[in-house]
Amino acid sequence: MFLTRTEYDRGVNTFSPEGRLFQVEYAIEAIKLGSTAIGLKTKEGVVLAVEKRITSPLLEPSSVEKIMEIDEHIGCAMSGLIADARTLVEHARVETQNHRFSYGEPMTVESTTQALCDLALRFGEGDEESMSRPFGVSLLIAGHDENGPRLYYTDPSGTFWQCNAKAIGSGSEGADSSLQEQYNKDLTLAEAETIALSILKQVMEEKVTPNNVDIAKVAPIYHLYTPSEVEAVIARL
Amino acid sequence: MFLTRTEYDRGVNTFSPEGRLFQVEYAIEAIKLGSTAIGLKTKEGVVLAVEKRITSPLLEPSSVEKIMEIDEHIGCAMSGLIADARTLVEHARVETQNHRFSYGEPMTVESTTQALCDLALRFGEGDEESMSRPFGVSLLIAGHDENGPRLYYTDPSGTFWQCNAKAIGSGSEGADSSLQEQYNKDLTLAEAETIALSILKQVMEEKVTPNNVDIAKVAPIYHLYTPSEVEAVIARL
Amino acid sequence: MFLTRTEYDRGVNTFSPEGRLFQVEYAIEAIKLGSTAIGLKTKEGVVLAVEKRITSPLLEPSSVEKIMEIDEHIGCAMSGLIADARTLVEHARVETQNHRFSYGEPMTVESTTQALCDLALRFGEGDEESMSRPFGVSLLIAGHDENGPRLYYTDPSGTFWQCNAKAIGSGSEGADSSLQEQYNKDLTLAEAETIALSILKQVMEEKVTPNNVDIAKVAPIYHLYTPSEVEAVIARL
Amino acid sequence: MFLTRTEYDRGVNTFSPEGRLFQVEYAIEAIKLGSTAIGLKTKEGVVLAVEKRITSPLLEPSSVEKIMEIDEHIGCAMSGLIADARTLVEHARVETQNHRFSYGEPMTVESTTQALCDLALRFGEGDEESMSRPFGVSLLIAGHDENGPRLYYTDPSGTFWQCNAKAIGSGSEGADSSLQEQYNKDLTLAEAETIALSILKQVMEEKVTPNNVDIAKVAPIYHLYTPSEVEAVIARL
Amino acid sequence: MFLTRTEYDRGVNTFSPEGRLFQVEYAIEAIKLGSTAIGLKTKEGVVLAVEKRITSPLLEPSSVEKIMEIDEHIGCAMSGLIADARTLVEHARVETQNHRFSYGEPMTVESTTQALCDLALRFGEGDEESMSRPFGVSLLIAGHDENGPRLYYTDPSGTFWQCNAKAIGSGSEGADSSLQEQYNKDLTLAEAETIALSILKQVMEEKVTPNNVDIAKVAPIYHLYTPSEVEAVIARL
Amino acid sequence: MFLTRTEYDRGVNTFSPEGRLFQVEYAIEAIKLGSTAIGLKTKEGVVLAVEKRITSPLLEPSSVEKIMEIDEHIGCAMSGLIADARTLVEHARVETQNHRFSYGEPMTVESTTQALCDLALRFGEGDEESMSRPFGVSLLIAGHDENGPRLYYTDPSGTFWQCNAKAIGSGSEGADSSLQEQYNKDLTLAEAETIALSILKQVMEEKVTPNNVDIAKVAPIYHLYTPSEVEAVIARL
Amino acid sequence: MFLTRTEYDRGVNTFSPEGRLFQVEYAIEAIKLGSTAIGLKTKEGVVLAVEKRITSPLLEPSSVEKIMEIDEHIGCAMSGLIADARTLVEHARVETQNHRFSYGEPMTVESTTQALCDLALRFGEGDEESMSRPFGVSLLIAGHDENGPRLYYTDPSGTFWQCNAKAIGSGSEGADSSLQEQYNKDLTLAEAETIALSILKQVMEEKVTPNNVDIAKVAPIYHLYTPSEVEAVIARL
Repeated sequence: MFLTRTEYDRGVNTFSPEGRLFQVEYAIEAIKLGSTAIGLKTKEGVVLAVEKRITSPLLEPSSVEKIMEIDEHIGCAMSGLIADARTLVEHARVETQNHRFSYGEPMTVESTTQALCDLALRFGEGDEESMSRPFGVSLLIAGHDENGPRLYYTDPSGTFWQCNAKAIGSGSEGADSSLQEQYNKDLTLAEAETIALSILKQVMEEKVTPNNVDIAKVAPIYHLYTPSEVEAVIARL
Repeated sequence: MFLTRTEYDRGVNTFSPEGRLFQVEYAIEAIKLGSTAIGLKTKEGVVLAVEKRITSPLLEPSSVEKIMEIDEHIGCAMSGLIADARTLVEHARVETQNHRFSYGEPMTVESTTQALCDLALRFGEGDEESMSRPFGVSLLIAGHDENGPRLYYTDPSGTFWQCNAKAIGSGSEGADSSLQEQYNKDLTLAEAETIALSILKQVMEEKVTPNNVDIAKVAPIYHLYTPSEVEAVIARL
Repeated sequence: MFLTRTEYDRGVNTFSPEGRLFQVEYAIEAIKLGSTAIGLKTKEGVVLAVEKRITSPLLEPSSVEKIMEIDEHIGCAMSGLIADARTLVEHARVETQNHRFSYGEPMTVESTTQALCDLALRFGEGDEESMSRPFGVSLLIAGHDENGPRLYYTDPSGTFWQCNAKAIGSGSEGADSSLQEQYNKDLTLAEAETIALSILKQVMEEKVTPNNVDIAKVAPIYHLYTPSEVEAVIARL
Repeated sequence: MFLTRTEYDRGVNTFSPEGRLFQVEYAIEAIKLGSTAIGLKTKEGVVLAVEKRITSPLLEPSSVEKIMEIDEHIGCAMSGLIADARTLVEHARVETQNHRFSYGEPMTVESTTQALCDLALRFGEGDEESMSRPFGVSLLIAGHDENGPRLYYTDPSGTFWQCNAKAIGSGSEGADSSLQEQYNKDLTLAEAETIALSILKQVMEEKVTPNNVDIAKVAPIYHLYTPSEVEAVIARL
Repeated sequence: MFLTRTEYDRGVNTFSPEGRLFQVEYAIEAIKLGSTAIGLKTKEGVVLAVEKRITSPLLEPSSVEKIMEIDEHIGCAMSGLIADARTLVEHARVETQNHRFSYGEPMTVESTTQALCDLALRFGEGDEESMSRPFGVSLLIAGHDENGPRLYYTDPSGTFWQCNAKAIGSGSEGADSSLQEQYNKDLTLAEAETIALSILKQVMEEKVTPNNVDIAKVAPIYHLYTPSEVEAVIARL
Repeated sequence: MFLTRTEYDRGVNTFSPEGRLFQVEYAIEAIKLGSTAIGLKTKEGVVLAVEKRITSPLLEPSSVEKIMEIDEHIGCAMSGLIADARTLVEHARVETQNHRFSYGEPMTVESTTQALCDLALRFGEGDEESMSRPFGVSLLIAGHDENGPRLYYTDPSGTFWQCNAKAIGSGSEGADSSLQEQYNKDLTLAEAETIALSILKQVMEEKVTPNNVDIAKVAPIYHLYTPSEVEAVIARL
Repeated sequence: MFLTRTEYDRGVNTFSPEGRLFQVEYAIEAIKLGSTAIGLKTKEGVVLAVEKRITSPLLEPSSVEKIMEIDEHIGCAMSGLIADARTLVEHARVETQNHRFSYGEPMTVESTTQALCDLALRFGEGDEESMSRPFGVSLLIAGHDENGPRLYYTDPSGTFWQCNAKAIGSGSEGADSSLQEQYNKDLTLAEAETIALSILKQVMEEKVTPNNVDIAKVAPIYHLYTPSEVEAVIARL
């Protein structure tokens, strides 16, 4: 059976006899190799927390960006190929700025997510911005708009889901289970911070420090925590 | 024989010696992996009902959209690759709006369906909007126009049929049999709702709740049921 | 020998050592899987009759269109991939309308047929309207112009022949033999209707009803028979 | 050796180690499967005669066109893929009309032949009018210009020769031998008609009738014989 | 080793591990299958002589052109694929006419040769005039310009050499040896004619007649010998 | 397993079943074959030092450029394919000049690095400036802007990291270990020079001379050391 | 291992697992098959000397050009595929003329070399001037500009080095050793001529004559030696 499978999985956009698109499934594997990221939605806003793999003490931790601002009311955490994520985020930044310019109001979180997924879906189509392969990255998109706080999760197939809480990356399986146990809709933002970091701590192989995790919130404005703010959350664990 | 078959099935648009297009057949397989959707046409209007697979309690059920509005008089239910369906629905929305703008009247349900199928048929042709592979999705298109209520069913080959009732997705075989037994042309809309949901209940592996099914009608205006309206139908089972 | 053959038959437009184009031959196979269609030319006009495969009682028989109008003086019956036929018919409709607009008179049946075949011939050439594979469909084109009634038969290679009578599709072999026995140039239109339907009856696996056959004539205007008109022909058998 | 050969013969335009272009050679095979056509040049003009394979008594013999007019002073007979020939003839018709329009005089037979061969040579080059494979057809081009009567023979490689007499198609080998025996430069047009038809009669498997052969002359104007004119030639045999 | 070789020789423009371009080498093989052509440069002018393979007595010998005029001061003899040569000669004719138009003087023989080779070199590059494979033809380019008589030899790689005398085609090996023995710079044009034809006679399998050889000179104007002029040279042998 | 791997690694931009992009990984191997380069950031500025492999005494050492200026405040050291690096550096020079022209101020080091990586990421996409394969080069980008001294490291995947110190090339593993031992943030520029050169000395197979190493600093202006300045640093070892 | 290697070496621009670009390495092999060329830089100017392989006494030695002028202050010697070199030289001639036209001064030797290498590097990229494979040629570029005499060496990868002396082609290994022994910076131009020719004599299989070697100098103007000037150098050996 393995031989048969390999015959279908190199065409970037070809169905296998079972109706599967293998290149998309392999891109999803790329994300399972990535660092873990967690998002939680509360009534006060959304919290994002990510593991930063600092492979050498000579690296500047702040240059390993795995949480990025899209617009002042939207941010995202990522897992997978960081260079791919940068292309998606850059695309979303242009879209949200264009929307502000054209309509005089911020783009909704769902429209922003959909714009990202439209680009991701069209891999292999030879468009100007699209890639010749699936984007090897998953995003957790946190935002706040007229509908209140919103958290979306995207995968390399260009599909997205709205979530209350979600983990992506190598530790996502265990983290998702923990989230299901600990999450409820009445969490405060501070409780969400603590849960996110305590779950991240379980899946990371080393001690949690302001150098190897990043935290951000959208409540209702995007804010990336300073090292001392991260330190404060660590202290609460 | 299997070896011979595999030699023809990776070219996206190549005939096998028996005159078959395997990539289209494999795309149809993708739909057999999808969630079940059901449509019934009555004199009062058309009912659509879909199973929503909520894989995690942390997902927001309302963000798993498997019934979408195309125009105020047309909606559709889908099974297969949701990201592909979004492209088709977006195309249909533009077509119906253009029609209203150019002719000052709504597009008929059949013309809308044909516009969708024209796009689906031209996969692999390098057109601007077409894809490099067949769209891995089937649609049930419900609408109401000068001819009264209409229900169409499309498959990945770009073919469509007008139906009185039809099921698609993983449970379609059993659901179609049940529809043939229970359907008649004099059903009321309420009876159609009840039949759709009772058949969906048979093919789903879990208890039916407002969280894991969606119901919509076009009678003659598209309306997606609120959770309490769904609850009311469930209560009638 | 089979192995050698398979080495040439996947290139869409490549000669085999014997000078054959296999993809065209395989497309012709697609037609042998199709439903049967029959055409007869009389002095009064041309009759077309087709078998409609209604796979489910829930399908609307009138939505399975295997006879279509091209212009008011031309119609066609088809066998093979219906979605492919739709593209060809749409092309012919535009051509005949353009001709009326440019020259103020209807296009002849032969010119219309030739326009269809020019499109069919250029598969694999990357033109705007042409496909990347042969069109998997045969047409019986019935019309009436300054030369009187005309019946043409086209195949996927882009070749066409003028005929007095012709059958295409899965039952074409037996039907052609019956046509040769029963056809003569002095048939009335009514006799041609009866012959067409009686031959169709022989090759169909089920009882002939207004639901599973369609009849049309061009005499000299295209007319698709209503169910009661079909019923009347059935009654004469 | 056969294996080695098959490794080179599918690239449409690739040399084998012996310096051969196999796709062109295979296209030439396609012509050996075609019906026989014969041309003879006399001082009075050129005669063309072709076998028409009428596979069914229901086909209209006049619709099987294997001799076509290019301009009023040029005609051609063909053997091989008729749909390919139609593209070449259509191209030649445009060229000769353009020449008349630009220069106010008819195009010479040699220039017309060269224009056809320029198109045939450029297969696989992605030009607008050229095909992705060699044209699977040979032509006998008969004409009359300032140099008097002219007969040219073209093959799928885009090469052409001027001839006094030539046969192409499945019976060409035997027919060429007969032509060498019977041809001389002082034949009258009537004698050439008789020779052409008597040779065609030898290579055809059935009785010669006005239904299964066509004759044309360019002397100095192109004229396709009517059935009764053909009957008269047959009567002379 | 043969297997290894075949792995590199089908890409039109790919180096083998030994740094060879096999498709060019195979095109050179095509020339070894061609008819023999000979060129000699004298102080009075250049002589070209070619073998014409007349495969049938029904062919018009004058239509087998293997020596062609490029401009009034340049002609060329060819061996290999004649249709390819026609493309090159047509290109050179346009170049030399453009040069006359732009500069009011004839193009030098070397510049003309270089223009031909620039086109030949760029096979496989997708340019407008270039081909997708090497041109399968060698040329002997004879001319007369401000530098006096000139003879150039080109091969399918787009390389050219200036020569005093040169033979190409199937008999080139023996002919080149004979040329080395018999050539000296003080030959008269008449002596060069005799040598060219006597060498051609050795390599041809049949008797030399005005029908199966062509002779031309550029001295200083291009002139193709009439049959009686050829007959006169034959008489001198 | 090796066989399976080779099936995925030739497509320039295809995921393997484990979610890996092999062509990028192989390009990273190209860098492991390259000469060693080292960068250190101090408060006074950044130091770059590279090994120059002078394969022959006849080469002009100054023409082996492995440290290049991008703008007056940015320079870079490279390891891998030098011709690829030249394309990237040329791109960065244009970007920084455009930035100065458009905004009247120097481009930041991070923006410059990101512009380089955007180009590197889009290999295989058919863009005007991008290549059909990954760039086989790593860069150490040293600069000084409003944020003070900055050192970035890029790899062929288009990813970049900010570092305090970093080594690339064949000796990078040992050099990185030495850097971790010897680096601290309070180094003077002179100490950084000494450390860089002493580490380079360890990994080079020959004696360090002004001919086979280059040193540059950005403090805050880019300066490539003269041979005598290099000699002075060597003398301090 | 050989099998594994062949799997990577046909893609024109694909990395092998070891990070190598085989097509470039094979192009370098093409140069090892080429004739030997030698360059020496002195304070008075640069000397180039090449072996000319005159395969037949009927070839005009002066038409075998392996040293060419680029601009009046730059010339180059070549080894490998001469037709490829001609494309590069033509490109350099246009670049140097454009530079004179735009800036009113000669282009430096290094800029000219870089322009050549930029073209060479972009093989396989589909640019207008670039080729679909690496250029199979190495150049020794001799020139004189504001920096005095300059000698550059380029290879098919698009890399270049400045040299004092360098040999390329089939005899380069032995010639380079001899150059290292005999070269010093204080050579006179006459001494350099003698060394170049004496080394060439060692690697050539036949006697050195003005017919089979070419010598040129740039001192400071490009000059190709006449046969008698070459004879004079030979006499000094």
